[in-house]
Amino acid sequence: MTSFAAAGGGMRIITLLTDFGLRDPYVAEMKAVILSIFPEVRIVDISHEIQKFNVRMGAFVLASATPYFPPGTIHVAVVDPGVGTSRRPIIVEGERHIYVGPDNGVLMLAAEGDGIRHVYHITNPRYMLSRVSRTFHGRDIFAPAAAYLAMGVPPYMFGPEIQDYVTPRFARVHRSNGTLHGEVLHIDGFGNVVSNISAEDLRGLGVCEGDALRVRLGGKSFTVRLCGAYGEVPRGELLAIIGSHDRLEISVNQGSASERLGVRAGDPIQVSPVGRANPNEGDASF
Amino acid sequence: MTSFAAAGGGMRIITLLTDFGLRDPYVAEMKAVILSIFPEVRIVDISHEIQKFNVRMGAFVLASATPYFPPGTIHVAVVDPGVGTSRRPIIVEGERHIYVGPDNGVLMLAAEGDGIRHVYHITNPRYMLSRVSRTFHGRDIFAPAAAYLAMGVPPYMFGPEIQDYVTPRFARVHRSNGTLHGEVLHIDGFGNVVSNISAEDLRGLGVCEGDALRVRLGGKSFTVRLCGAYGEVPRGELLAIIGSHDRLEISVNQGSASERLGVRAGDPIQVSPVGRANPNEGDASF
Amino acid sequence: MTSFAAAGGGMRIITLLTDFGLRDPYVAEMKAVILSIFPEVRIVDISHEIQKFNVRMGAFVLASATPYFPPGTIHVAVVDPGVGTSRRPIIVEGERHIYVGPDNGVLMLAAEGDGIRHVYHITNPRYMLSRVSRTFHGRDIFAPAAAYLAMGVPPYMFGPEIQDYVTPRFARVHRSNGTLHGEVLHIDGFGNVVSNISAEDLRGLGVCEGDALRVRLGGKSFTVRLCGAYGEVPRGELLAIIGSHDRLEISVNQGSASERLGVRAGDPIQVSPVGRANPNEGDASF
Repeated sequence: MTSFAAAGGGMRIITLLTDFGLRDPYVAEMKAVILSIFPEVRIVDISHEIQKFNVRMGAFVLASATPYFPPGTIHVAVVDPGVGTSRRPIIVEGERHIYVGPDNGVLMLAAEGDGIRHVYHITNPRYMLSRVSRTFHGRDIFAPAAAYLAMGVPPYMFGPEIQDYVTPRFARVHRSNGTLHGEVLHIDGFGNVVSNISAEDLRGLGVCEGDALRVRLGGKSFTVRLCGAYGEVPRGELLAIIGSHDRLEISVNQGSASERLGVRAGDPIQVSPVGRANPNEGDASF
Repeated sequence: MTSFAAAGGGMRIITLLTDFGLRDPYVAEMKAVILSIFPEVRIVDISHEIQKFNVRMGAFVLASATPYFPPGTIHVAVVDPGVGTSRRPIIVEGERHIYVGPDNGVLMLAAEGDGIRHVYHITNPRYMLSRVSRTFHGRDIFAPAAAYLAMGVPPYMFGPEIQDYVTPRFARVHRSNGTLHGEVLHIDGFGNVVSNISAEDLRGLGVCEGDALRVRLGGKSFTVRLCGAYGEVPRGELLAIIGSHDRLEISVNQGSASERLGVRAGDPIQVSPVGRANPNEGDASF
Repeated sequence: MTSFAAAGGGMRIITLLTDFGLRDPYVAEMKAVILSIFPEVRIVDISHEIQKFNVRMGAFVLASATPYFPPGTIHVAVVDPGVGTSRRPIIVEGERHIYVGPDNGVLMLAAEGDGIRHVYHITNPRYMLSRVSRTFHGRDIFAPAAAYLAMGVPPYMFGPEIQDYVTPRFARVHRSNGTLHGEVLHIDGFGNVVSNISAEDLRGLGVCEGDALRVRLGGKSFTVRLCGAYGEVPRGELLAIIGSHDRLEISVNQGSASERLGVRAGDPIQVSPVGRANPNEGDASF
């Protein structure tokens, strides 16, 4: 547990990610519960605008943000269509961070990136609100668990270790005949189409910055150049880029690629190299 | 005043609830004013996405979140269509918390739940910004008042006690011939239709979990089962549930009941028991 | 640097303004980077809902909020259509505050209001993330710069002083023949049309509260009274008002002036006095 003690400056951080939105009282209730148990903690919002019940999007956004937090951070993620049913509340003890949420995969993209040590089923009522609703485990189970973890209660105190936790199958890329077959993980607020294809996957095909790529996406087939910055193509033109999370994005400079192409999260994407492009010809042709 | 001194861990909390949205600089200006006066305070957002000028929704969201905060918390609520007119700025000293905002009812659902000790009309210019606009009392009057309260200035220093404060009439349920007549308090971000009918009102009719309810709502009449969790009915089906604030909600599992039924906040709702349902028949028929 | 040392209560504040929205992980990544470098700092959001790539709106919202923060505050603004191109990352050392962001004008309305002492081009890799992407300087350059500034690293350590920084041309008002020619700076969430015409500009024309104004805006010409509060006209009627940032706004009491008039940020506005109105006649005629 030494890494958990190393939380920056002695102040522990709890992050929150939900699909609750910011209009309702739900997020504030979670914060109120946390601060009532452990007033010294710092709370940082990752996102509360995850699409309702979209576990894949929650998993992606969580896994994108968590690596930047200091050691010992506790991440609570509540995208929880099965709240109140038999799905289990869990704590994942990772190499650097701790993850708290439902056992539906939302924690696992981040936890696998960190390195999973142990997974515990939260069953100990001592670390829950005295009255647990069946509609709002974020407030009644996950928020108190995070607060007690931040106070130093070790993860194994919350319940039995389990091995049969849910592992999601998104984020697997296949390669055949020099073509990468992936899927769209996320559409960001700029309309960038974020795929599950990594920079490493592209390097495995011998693709370098400046090369042209053949892309099948949204029922369309087109050629784009792999750029290093959005501004390398004129405003309004398509490009490919390794985004800030080291994944291939299809983007439009100062525009929305998802609108242009009619793409949604979960859609398939295929990518293959065309060969090193002439810089004067390599712009998006669509 | 001993309860106010018991703020968690020695750090006072100020919460903010407004209809300002998060696009404009208004919320940040309130925070800047608070931190300029009392840098040691912790600020927690309850919601800034209250529908513009919707005092009822502001009152409901405030009353939902406030009970979870530690003793001594100061709540600022600014849903204020009458800003700059003769409506008074007030401080409500409750049993556990202090409430700051306009005298239009927005504070009162929360304050009544807490227990009202005293209500003061804020008139002392010493605790306002040196220049008070007539368009933004959130920044010029309410934020400084909250900061000085957090510093320990007692409520009676801000102005004269008043008795004729505004008390809202929403949240009153009537019962006749075994039917509860209530109204829709709030539509949450999931589309759940939150009524003003409490768990206690339903118990008064002898209704238990699993029972079927006859509901009139949105010009429609239908039967739903009172469930314990959203997931007890198939995805897309209507249910009734006691929500996380102990009020009757009409919901659709992983869907939007307000869209399905065309319901808005303020609409009437009538509920009566059908009798204990056979679990195989008790699902929503609509 | 004495003013910078005077940060309220010994705790430095970093504010964030972006066009990233709150759905994606980007804002949380910036906060994570800041807290990893300097855990003692306090972070306050100004807005993350600036219209994508709208530097003018970002500049206006930043300049509105910053004056209310205590001395020594560090403001980070990232509305950055040119990220990854040759546009420079800069630090502006003002009289009271420090500003960090791209050299595209977004910082300058606030910095000019504060008083510009020095502008530095951020080039020192020591104060950047070890790996700088070309798509997300908010996380990789601006967030670390703010954190190191908050720790006390002086601005000149980040790179060479420059003189040829970008100065935006919005917010200039012209007067001819007793008419003010300005432009719309911002549409706020209430639909208020915020112009660049200041209270001082109006006083220069001899206009007082209660006077009628002739306004040309959105292809329409109409007369409104300069009111002191929104509630001085009936609900749904047009009015003029000096808003909370000392600029002329065209508003509708409890309604949206921008929708009524079909106005957008950047549109021209002309204003001239009609003479002191009879209070019974001075209401909006439209």
